[in-house]
Amino acid sequence: MKDFNLKRRLFSEWIGTALLVAVVIGSGIMGENLADGNDAIALLANTLATGAALVVLILIFGQISGAHFNPVVSLSLALQGGLRWREFFFYTLVQILGGLAGTVLAHSMFDLPLIQISTHVRTGAGIWIGEIIASCGLLMTIIGVHKNHPQAVPYAVGLFITAGYWFTSSTSFANPAVTMARAFSDTFAGIRPGDIGGFIMAQILGAAGATFLMRWLYKPNI
Amino acid sequence: MKDFNLKRRLFSEWIGTALLVAVVIGSGIMGENLADGNDAIALLANTLATGAALVVLILIFGQISGAHFNPVVSLSLALQGGLRWREFFFYTLVQILGGLAGTVLAHSMFDLPLIQISTHVRTGAGIWIGEIIASCGLLMTIIGVHKNHPQAVPYAVGLFITAGYWFTSSTSFANPAVTMARAFSDTFAGIRPGDIGGFIMAQILGAAGATFLMRWLYKPNI
Amino acid sequence: MKDFNLKRRLFSEWIGTALLVAVVIGSGIMGENLADGNDAIALLANTLATGAALVVLILIFGQISGAHFNPVVSLSLALQGGLRWREFFFYTLVQILGGLAGTVLAHSMFDLPLIQISTHVRTGAGIWIGEIIASCGLLMTIIGVHKNHPQAVPYAVGLFITAGYWFTSSTSFANPAVTMARAFSDTFAGIRPGDIGGFIMAQILGAAGATFLMRWLYKPNI
Amino acid sequence: MKDFNLKRRLFSEWIGTALLVAVVIGSGIMGENLADGNDAIALLANTLATGAALVVLILIFGQISGAHFNPVVSLSLALQGGLRWREFFFYTLVQILGGLAGTVLAHSMFDLPLIQISTHVRTGAGIWIGEIIASCGLLMTIIGVHKNHPQAVPYAVGLFITAGYWFTSSTSFANPAVTMARAFSDTFAGIRPGDIGGFIMAQILGAAGATFLMRWLYKPNI
Repeated sequence: MKDFNLKRRLFSEWIGTALLVAVVIGSGIMGENLADGNDAIALLANTLATGAALVVLILIFGQISGAHFNPVVSLSLALQGGLRWREFFFYTLVQILGGLAGTVLAHSMFDLPLIQISTHVRTGAGIWIGEIIASCGLLMTIIGVHKNHPQAVPYAVGLFITAGYWFTSSTSFANPAVTMARAFSDTFAGIRPGDIGGFIMAQILGAAGATFLMRWLYKPNI
Repeated sequence: MKDFNLKRRLFSEWIGTALLVAVVIGSGIMGENLADGNDAIALLANTLATGAALVVLILIFGQISGAHFNPVVSLSLALQGGLRWREFFFYTLVQILGGLAGTVLAHSMFDLPLIQISTHVRTGAGIWIGEIIASCGLLMTIIGVHKNHPQAVPYAVGLFITAGYWFTSSTSFANPAVTMARAFSDTFAGIRPGDIGGFIMAQILGAAGATFLMRWLYKPNI
Repeated sequence: MKDFNLKRRLFSEWIGTALLVAVVIGSGIMGENLADGNDAIALLANTLATGAALVVLILIFGQISGAHFNPVVSLSLALQGGLRWREFFFYTLVQILGGLAGTVLAHSMFDLPLIQISTHVRTGAGIWIGEIIASCGLLMTIIGVHKNHPQAVPYAVGLFITAGYWFTSSTSFANPAVTMARAFSDTFAGIRPGDIGGFIMAQILGAAGATFLMRWLYKPNI
Repeated sequence: MKDFNLKRRLFSEWIGTALLVAVVIGSGIMGENLADGNDAIALLANTLATGAALVVLILIFGQISGAHFNPVVSLSLALQGGLRWREFFFYTLVQILGGLAGTVLAHSMFDLPLIQISTHVRTGAGIWIGEIIASCGLLMTIIGVHKNHPQAVPYAVGLFITAGYWFTSSTSFANPAVTMARAFSDTFAGIRPGDIGGFIMAQILGAAGATFLMRWLYKPNI
């Protein structure tokens, strides 16, 4: 990442997050349009597209900005000393802006109103536990796989989210910037704005927990 | 590619594009035949087959001709100075001829009229935006992944199209030769001949845009 | 594995097995909830999530504890002299405890009673043969792939279970700790407690058989 | 392969082919049982299991016997001078016997009559063209990918068959030993015994064609 100045790194985070959100929302719309009301088939399509796109986006942008596309990933790196707090602030800002651009892009492709307010209720203890597990698992994946198989990180992240869409009750948003962006889409992937807060709290908890857990697990033996 | 003379490189592009189109159209027919009218299931099958075949075809033919199978990929390489314009002309020609051969091959396997005229309407602003994004994303994938993970390019291209079939409103044709070939099939994967023009314009726009974007992103820091 | 003391290795086995079971049961619940009664679609989702998660968990924890998450994998390694019997005992213990934790975790995410007793009947000669084949195949995969392609083991295990969910009549539990954990979930992935015995017998038979078969296959030529 | 004596290489081909057929037939039965009459969903499951198993089986047995599991793959290697004709004869024999064992194994897991006679009609010009393309593509994959990406062969074969199940009208049997074995199963994956002849003719044609095509494509430039 030292080879790229901050401007280009921020552009990389912005466009990567935009494309990620465009995939999440766009494939949700397409899935729902075609699935004749069978939500499992729509979610299978949503899963396939999101998992595949994550691998590709991390392969493209990983060498430029680290390919976080996710404030809690940047947060974890900052906690580990791998990102300055000033950088963390700008990363988070462009991730949120990128996410919103992705929402607009997805809607524009499907001839829908560019900005919408989601009515999809996603709240409750079970959902929050799901989101803690999702974020904890995502960060364990990133930190743990990076230690021993750095080349495998893009694939591991795509596969973790593939599993997460199905095994967590929240379908693994695991990303505050993407969560905010999804609030502006009243489609399959949406989330009611009032439910964002609980999600982001859970995401921060899960990511911070994973960061400390993995540090303990890998600290030198005594 | 220097190890192979132009004749064999053109043969590689011809047969690779033919097989790619045979997969796209053939799996569309099979999907529609079996899916009992559920288009999401048909598109899942179409996606799985196309993504898998792209990986294999690029692994087989990449060392011979670069495995473009796509005029806008050849165009991007020519713009970057990696293909002479004379070669670009022949590449495009055999890609188009290969695509038509693939359509005929797919129809022959399913006992259908070998040449048909599609009636599948695919037009409008949303669809064109989808096709710009599809082609832009495909070229960003090829250029960006080639920079840092050249061994991963075949997998990344297969995964990008897997995502593209679902998140873009146009289902990511992203290829003028394949677009033309699909106009001659009145099946699941078809496109009305009158709609080809808009698609190809969008594809050229997206591919050229990605080429300049990635050049800026990777140019040496000052 | 020499770099990690036993406490951390056991923690790695505990949390890995917990997450594996959370994925198996959680994605089963989600699949059944969304699939409108089509069990094939529910099992496809279950398969996708389990296969993906296995790859990720082995990539994360493989360097720490070997990423067995499975008493018959530990047994096979002990039979080959790669794990002391004292270690085998503790590995098995934490795998079973981890599995139970995973069941509770999955239920908590979906707001279900934390501990349930499954009523899902899984017994009979065909099912037992299925489970022998599943465990035999799993161990052949681990031992055989480790010999020549050690980097590919995580992917191979995920792919074997992906196939196993569909080609064996028992849907390839292939794991005594996971089998016990699934008895405490009256959901898609459950198994009636009375049917555990037959499964575990079959799993031990299959795993031991594979261990001796692969040893013969790879012993030096005379 | 020089490290293993013929007896063990033949055992490797026998058991590998048996497991391959058990996966093809077993996952077909499971898919049909669960899919509520939607053949596309059954074929998706069949595809997923077969593609995944092929990767695993080639990773396990590739270093021992080459992991052909297929008389036309052995034929192609013999034509290229990589297998003696005496070896080819024994390879083909154990592949056929292994296939039959796999059929019996699959039926035993699902409590079905161990030997059945299929009534599934698979004949006609379109189907035969499909089978020529399937076998030609399979051999192009094996030969072409082996040239430049030998480590990728297991994945490429799995992905080619994944595509082949959907884009060829014959669903890509592409293997005489597996074709014979499937004639003894009156289930989803079966083929009427009278239709075997046409399939095997097409498979030999396709495989021989690919062998000569790839030899021409890769012969030194003049």
